[in-house]
Amino acid sequence: MRGRGRSASLNQMKTRRERLARLIERALNEALPPAEGTPAVLQRAMRYCVFSRGKRFRPLLCLGACEAVGGSVRQALPTACAIELIHTYSLVHDDLPAMDNAAQRRGKPSCHRQFGEATAILVGDALLTRAFELVSHNGTPRVLEILRTIGQASGTTGLIGGQLLDLQFEVRPPRRARRAGRGSSKFEVRQLEEIAKRKTAALITASVVVGGLVGRARSSALNRLRRFGQHLGLAFQLVDDVHDGDGLVRLVGPAEVRQKADGLLEQAKRDMLPFGKRAAILLELAEWLSQT
Amino acid sequence: MRGRGRSASLNQMKTRRERLARLIERALNEALPPAEGTPAVLQRAMRYCVFSRGKRFRPLLCLGACEAVGGSVRQALPTACAIELIHTYSLVHDDLPAMDNAAQRRGKPSCHRQFGEATAILVGDALLTRAFELVSHNGTPRVLEILRTIGQASGTTGLIGGQLLDLQFEVRPPRRARRAGRGSSKFEVRQLEEIAKRKTAALITASVVVGGLVGRARSSALNRLRRFGQHLGLAFQLVDDVHDGDGLVRLVGPAEVRQKADGLLEQAKRDMLPFGKRAAILLELAEWLSQT
Repeated sequence: MRGRGRSASLNQMKTRRERLARLIERALNEALPPAEGTPAVLQRAMRYCVFSRGKRFRPLLCLGACEAVGGSVRQALPTACAIELIHTYSLVHDDLPAMDNAAQRRGKPSCHRQFGEATAILVGDALLTRAFELVSHNGTPRVLEILRTIGQASGTTGLIGGQLLDLQFEVRPPRRARRAGRGSSKFEVRQLEEIAKRKTAALITASVVVGGLVGRARSSALNRLRRFGQHLGLAFQLVDDVHDGDGLVRLVGPAEVRQKADGLLEQAKRDMLPFGKRAAILLELAEWLSQT
Repeated sequence: MRGRGRSASLNQMKTRRERLARLIERALNEALPPAEGTPAVLQRAMRYCVFSRGKRFRPLLCLGACEAVGGSVRQALPTACAIELIHTYSLVHDDLPAMDNAAQRRGKPSCHRQFGEATAILVGDALLTRAFELVSHNGTPRVLEILRTIGQASGTTGLIGGQLLDLQFEVRPPRRARRAGRGSSKFEVRQLEEIAKRKTAALITASVVVGGLVGRARSSALNRLRRFGQHLGLAFQLVDDVHDGDGLVRLVGPAEVRQKADGLLEQAKRDMLPFGKRAAILLELAEWLSQT
């Protein structure tokens, strides 16, 4: 009985997450610039990039954090969409020939392969611009804090700085570890962690924090959400590295990286204990990551 | 005597504009991201682009509009800087090889020529991100309106849409007019005007409007400022075209374009009559343009 009860509740949970994901899709559809006045190819290319099998991990985190502090999920939708547009713009620009030169993204041709390089640059610019405009449609009292949090996470001290460090790192690739845990310098490990913190964890942390801000969290709850985001964000990058055999995995091997990710996810779950059941969505996202 | 008095007042005016320009330089210096946490090359490249003989036309308009409605010029500084960073980012991205492929900008190598293409893409992204973050440091009550105004002027219906239309137009260049006023289709003239409105006039108009918003302008004054900005912005592009022998000049000849610009500037000055002496800076910027 207990087993069946638990599985029913897991199913309920999944359904709830799916419902939130559908809310996000609809909101994203309305969040993109109006067709009127937008050149058709730009309109098409922006939608091509935004609607492409993304997991919506960041906007779900934003809604989940808002719920965890007792806020209204619907009120967090514009902010959640803004975060997803910023994430998408960063992928479009990172894929450009001068950067990672990626031919594919989420199982289809990358934006510049499909629409040309000039359009891809403008698509990224337009998604970023629209993201900040969206935040202004957010009627919550703490909108300026939200704006600042997103700006810092995606600026030179976050996303953009991380991408630059990553490019510099790739120009001088680390000597491959002779075997896991050996042959790698502490300096290189620290560098990769710094890149992960900025390129991945910063925006994931911001997703959680701004959800809390929309939900009018007090500062102790915000600090807790921030820690959760930092642990989860770093784990996210490590899990990704394990899958791609990239980053830290090249230096210390997959087993050690996986173990580190699991440790971070356990910490993240502990961060959520005081929120009780209201943290259900956040816990589920952490659980999903640990099973990925 | 009358002549000497007038020249003294013109000198005073110039001095006042120079003082405002110095305020802007100082504010821009503080507006850029902190050195701490910002990769050094990004920091250097951003400063290289922002401090490069720009006329500061847009931030001066912003301060001038704030003054015209009786607001405090100092309060408008973060917003004025945000506009200048957006203008600078758009130049950095427009200069990229996939776009206009410009080797020079303001008398020195363009950003990508100096720092490489990847860095130039990130510099543009970082300037845009920082611009929106700056707006959040603006304590004025109408900050959300300011954010929306800047977002719309620089998004798909403004700056970015205009650059895309411009690229499309250049792929299919108009047949050169056999002589001024002949051989050009009305369609091409309308296209070029649309591009000018978005690529140039939209952000210039926004500069004036947000200055008014910081100064807590009423809606009638805002409408007047908006009209002023639209007239001035279009004139700005036409004067630029006359200098470069570009755009409309290729279709209808320089004399007709100059005449059109002068007409717009006269309209712009008339828009400012109700503001009296408080519009001195705005009138001077219009005058400067008509003498350029």
